[in-house]
Amino acid sequence: MSLFRPAIDRIEGYLPGEQPQETGWIKLNTNENPYPPSPRVAEAIAAAAAGKLNIYPDPLVTRFRETAGALFNVDADWILPANGSDENLTILMRSFADGGDLVSFPYPSYILYETLADIQGARHQRLQLNKDWSWDFDRVRPIINESRLVLVPNPNSPSGNEWSRDEILNLVSPNGVLVLDEAYGDFADEPHRGQILQSDLGRQIVITRTLSKSYSLAGIRFGFAVAHPDLISGMRKVKDSYNCNTLSIAAATAAIQDQDWMRKNTRKIRATRARLTAELRSLGFEAVESQANFVWSTHPERSHQEIYQTLKSRKILVRFMKFPDALDGEEITGLRITVGTDEETNRFLAELTSIVK
Amino acid sequence: MSLFRPAIDRIEGYLPGEQPQETGWIKLNTNENPYPPSPRVAEAIAAAAAGKLNIYPDPLVTRFRETAGALFNVDADWILPANGSDENLTILMRSFADGGDLVSFPYPSYILYETLADIQGARHQRLQLNKDWSWDFDRVRPIINESRLVLVPNPNSPSGNEWSRDEILNLVSPNGVLVLDEAYGDFADEPHRGQILQSDLGRQIVITRTLSKSYSLAGIRFGFAVAHPDLISGMRKVKDSYNCNTLSIAAATAAIQDQDWMRKNTRKIRATRARLTAELRSLGFEAVESQANFVWSTHPERSHQEIYQTLKSRKILVRFMKFPDALDGEEITGLRITVGTDEETNRFLAELTSIVK
Repeated sequence: MSLFRPAIDRIEGYLPGEQPQETGWIKLNTNENPYPPSPRVAEAIAAAAAGKLNIYPDPLVTRFRETAGALFNVDADWILPANGSDENLTILMRSFADGGDLVSFPYPSYILYETLADIQGARHQRLQLNKDWSWDFDRVRPIINESRLVLVPNPNSPSGNEWSRDEILNLVSPNGVLVLDEAYGDFADEPHRGQILQSDLGRQIVITRTLSKSYSLAGIRFGFAVAHPDLISGMRKVKDSYNCNTLSIAAATAAIQDQDWMRKNTRKIRATRARLTAELRSLGFEAVESQANFVWSTHPERSHQEIYQTLKSRKILVRFMKFPDALDGEEITGLRITVGTDEETNRFLAELTSIVK
Repeated sequence: MSLFRPAIDRIEGYLPGEQPQETGWIKLNTNENPYPPSPRVAEAIAAAAAGKLNIYPDPLVTRFRETAGALFNVDADWILPANGSDENLTILMRSFADGGDLVSFPYPSYILYETLADIQGARHQRLQLNKDWSWDFDRVRPIINESRLVLVPNPNSPSGNEWSRDEILNLVSPNGVLVLDEAYGDFADEPHRGQILQSDLGRQIVITRTLSKSYSLAGIRFGFAVAHPDLISGMRKVKDSYNCNTLSIAAATAAIQDQDWMRKNTRKIRATRARLTAELRSLGFEAVESQANFVWSTHPERSHQEIYQTLKSRKILVRFMKFPDALDGEEITGLRITVGTDEETNRFLAELTSIVK
């Protein structure tokens, strides 16, 4: 007899993108920012490391919450910092989805939601997206109406498209919480700052943000949720007391205080994204118009898996993705290509050209 | 209608010890180590901060696992690093306790276990300890036999006493997992190194360790579990992919590589502990013989809460604790006093003397 819960025995566990530990790779597979974080981050880490690491961090992470609150035009009690956005997703699942409750999320989308629902013992259903990544509201409405938790990345992954405010408000369940996973929100041409939380349905919406992408800090694991204090205070009961550490708090606070640095990098990435998209199309790929720091690309004839393997043999990693049972039972495959530096992008395009020409 | 799970609405949330953010306090309330971490820690953090913080950390935390495995004479796949020992306790609850399953833990003991069981939706029962902190096995046996998860701090908190190997083996449930929370294990006169995992019942035991206490790193949030790979591999499915960050991994790895530094500090703390215990007794307190970095102390006549308040007004924090419904329905109160530096301890004893004399 297994000692584990049946739910744990059943699942495979989420498999993150490859993270080679040796140098020499061009990594376009896990949507990291190719540019370094603000120089203020290293200064803040040095100052924190010279302080008292033998003492627990501030469990309320007050300084970060005040800074993030100001950015979103809300008070500090609207902010919940976490050990990466993944932790906030875990906290959300444990806060709002009881065993047997229905959880739903778009498909194809971020696969982790399904794993987290499985671990929690919740039921889950996919909200099948149209082939052009738009919503079929007639199809998904009954599932949403029954859901206690709906999780929607916006911009979506792997597609990179962004849904409008009206579309998003259509996804709020009458008796549930809508999580807007805005991990890639800063890469949109017109980034949001939580304005949707002030709408009539705002008290049922939680926005999650991360410093891994736009702030170039995947290594420090820091994300935060923005929501009405009624939601944040309940979620706080679920989190571990000291879920962020002295060094990551210092780094994260310094990073969001340097908005100019972040915006300079997201501007560069948006410019490279436009060029990457155009070049992919000129090579015969279809490429979704992206509002994120990656481009979803498919080729009408060539094997995506083979392209991925050939690139890998040349030390370029992109993400080969396979979504079985998409709309009408079809299997969707494709390549999700992170927007790197111009140099990395040129090198990738040169190799890709030699593969598909 | 609440959007939260009923379990979340019901609980209050765990309240950690006071963490004043301003200086000038003598903090003897949250069992921090008064000595700084190994100088190698700051070097390792500086090197990591100069590296690529824009890239995700190693999700397998390989270097740390290899070092910790060597310390415990096991392979790296026996080790699960976590964002503080609290996160490993959360992972254990989510791995082994299904909704409605029975979870048990000694009482009086670490209150967090109860909160985590509540969040998970598990049933829980207390294993009432005798007044001298020993086990009444006849009393607790039926509860243990029915438990899927038993959590036991050893040394225990708030008492600081350590139970023997034979006593611990008596606490393994026939169909469950025993968690030995060895947060204070390095402060014992004869510290264990996971030998119990090699016993016949070893495959049902998980040891959790933290770097917050003996390694003086409460600020970086790093703990690890040691158990048979069959248990670790299942627990790994539950954890977030990147639960430790680049800086904390560097700090933790450097810290456990400097065993001499840690042992030098634990030796000093053991010496101060002996003196603190003797002085408390000479002031008319009862003090449990401690194997941890704190002393549980009670006074036959004086109000513990008043002593705590008076000390606090003099900027000395100790932990006033109240355990309602201990053995035979009695309420137990007392002071848990962290072993500080000799200077802090002298200052505390001087103030305490002026209060109780």
